[in-house]
Amino acid sequence: MSSEFRKDLLSDKWVIILNDDNNFIPDKDSKFDYKSLPVLDANCPFCPGNENKTKFSIYELKKGNNWQVRVIPNNKPYLKVETNLKRHTKDIFAYIDGTGANEVIIETPIHNIDFDEMEVKDISFILQAYKERFLDLKKDERMEHIIIIKSRGIKAGSFIPHLHSQLVAFPVIPPMIDEELNEAENYYKIKNNCVYCDMIKSEIKLDERVILSNEHFICILPYASRVSFEMMILPREHKSHFYDINEKEVMSLASILKEAIYKLNKATGYSAYNMILHTSPIKLSKLEYYHWHIEILPKLKNFSGFEQATGLFINPTTPEEAANYLKELK
Amino acid sequence: MSSEFRKDLLSDKWVIILNDDNNFIPDKDSKFDYKSLPVLDANCPFCPGNENKTKFSIYELKKGNNWQVRVIPNNKPYLKVETNLKRHTKDIFAYIDGTGANEVIIETPIHNIDFDEMEVKDISFILQAYKERFLDLKKDERMEHIIIIKSRGIKAGSFIPHLHSQLVAFPVIPPMIDEELNEAENYYKIKNNCVYCDMIKSEIKLDERVILSNEHFICILPYASRVSFEMMILPREHKSHFYDINEKEVMSLASILKEAIYKLNKATGYSAYNMILHTSPIKLSKLEYYHWHIEILPKLKNFSGFEQATGLFINPTTPEEAANYLKELK
Repeated sequence: MSSEFRKDLLSDKWVIILNDDNNFIPDKDSKFDYKSLPVLDANCPFCPGNENKTKFSIYELKKGNNWQVRVIPNNKPYLKVETNLKRHTKDIFAYIDGTGANEVIIETPIHNIDFDEMEVKDISFILQAYKERFLDLKKDERMEHIIIIKSRGIKAGSFIPHLHSQLVAFPVIPPMIDEELNEAENYYKIKNNCVYCDMIKSEIKLDERVILSNEHFICILPYASRVSFEMMILPREHKSHFYDINEKEVMSLASILKEAIYKLNKATGYSAYNMILHTSPIKLSKLEYYHWHIEILPKLKNFSGFEQATGLFINPTTPEEAANYLKELK
Repeated sequence: MSSEFRKDLLSDKWVIILNDDNNFIPDKDSKFDYKSLPVLDANCPFCPGNENKTKFSIYELKKGNNWQVRVIPNNKPYLKVETNLKRHTKDIFAYIDGTGANEVIIETPIHNIDFDEMEVKDISFILQAYKERFLDLKKDERMEHIIIIKSRGIKAGSFIPHLHSQLVAFPVIPPMIDEELNEAENYYKIKNNCVYCDMIKSEIKLDERVILSNEHFICILPYASRVSFEMMILPREHKSHFYDINEKEVMSLASILKEAIYKLNKATGYSAYNMILHTSPIKLSKLEYYHWHIEILPKLKNFSGFEQATGLFINPTTPEEAANYLKELK
């Protein structure tokens, strides 16, 4: 078995890529069999007819008389929006009270569906809802950052199969985003360019890991992918904040997301995955050095103690091999 | 449920600590029932009598005529020591061939034992073996860093119950260590002190999270613990490199490790855990700002997609509550 250390430009972290294994086979318990479920589940808190099981709607997008997308408060919030933001110290240690917003975005009234089988228009409704929640929550003086994360399947951390995302607004910048911002700023200081823009140019030129593209977006498998079939979707035009997305771009993004999830689900045999929106902290004005993007992280294997302890991921699949496979999938 | 964001001084990362849950109950599949196994297992590659199942000994420590600690090459190495170290670039991307050393330290001839039931003297043999391997491998010009990691139980990534650790020598500095070095250097620039030394002082003064101490070492539950019962063992005296440990300190460390693992196993009902040695990169001379230490990370719960995606851990137990519980355990 040969292997290489690849440097991730965006996080400045090394990843070990195994060159000649190309093991695409997910663990059995990664399988996420939502397609065999009914269209409507009377016990699902997110299904139409059960709206009374959730507190209230923070936001709704309607299609005719019925809701198509609903945003509700998370019923088990880690962070409470009612808490005042107070900063404390105790000797050399610092803490902040657990202020924040925990919301759930119910992305469709249909119980057993994912992006791959949805209308592009319906996916665009979801993205529109994301944007509206950003614009509303950014008015809250206490909040620094908003994460939107979708978890599909138990392995990815979700026990409810009905398509939904979690939105969390924080009074701090989460570690992953903080790292990306730092590295992007360092790169900008040296090269006077956005590292994401440079990466997009390089990926298009090399044409080894680009699996999808349209007028406004590109979908690549990152050079230093941490897991098999890891995907990244980026706007071609430099934009630091997701909430600056326009109507045309929303449609383009909906379209590339549908295709990306189609390929992912086919390739992994419908396995668990996470999808995470990475964007600039809401308080910061437009940044020259940071570029919003979406990461899709399949959960095909358990992480070993080694990976958690060292931060060094071992990826059994080269992204070039995985990209070839995905490109050929129709 | 109330919660707080705590800043980890050592990594500059925020952790969410839930204040009033204090949920100590591990997931069922975290249980690691090695005690019901036989003392000797004819099928275990690490048991005495099966030495021919492993390639050869890199290093052995004997007790009478028999080995007490054996170091062998990993039979499925991700990195090969025979590979030349070559640095490559491809457009804006960089990689290094997968050079490195993968060794396994078999820490006892007994199949069904952990530190808690071992003689302090026998644990000191293991630490001596760690040190000897560091001193030998640091001669290799290509290597930058050595990690020693112990994985106990399937949840922690190990399928062999016989007590062992993995040693990996890398041509790069693993991300976790790189982060710690950067943060420690930043702190040193501002405060002109080692952040670990300052933290030890503060922990002793506050006396809320110190669970064990002896002449040379202290065992704390970190202020911003990522998981329930996370532990950190640090030398009281500032030392950047583990391999500078002396004979007396080896005995002290063996003694505190025995007690720490005893408390951990009792508290978690013998659950899976990882133990990781964090030390300075081998090529660097003595550092004023970095302090070697051991981290013990219990694997009681699955990480959610949220934690993996944001880098923000949610710990259901305050370390103060966990420390009180552990202190009272006899």
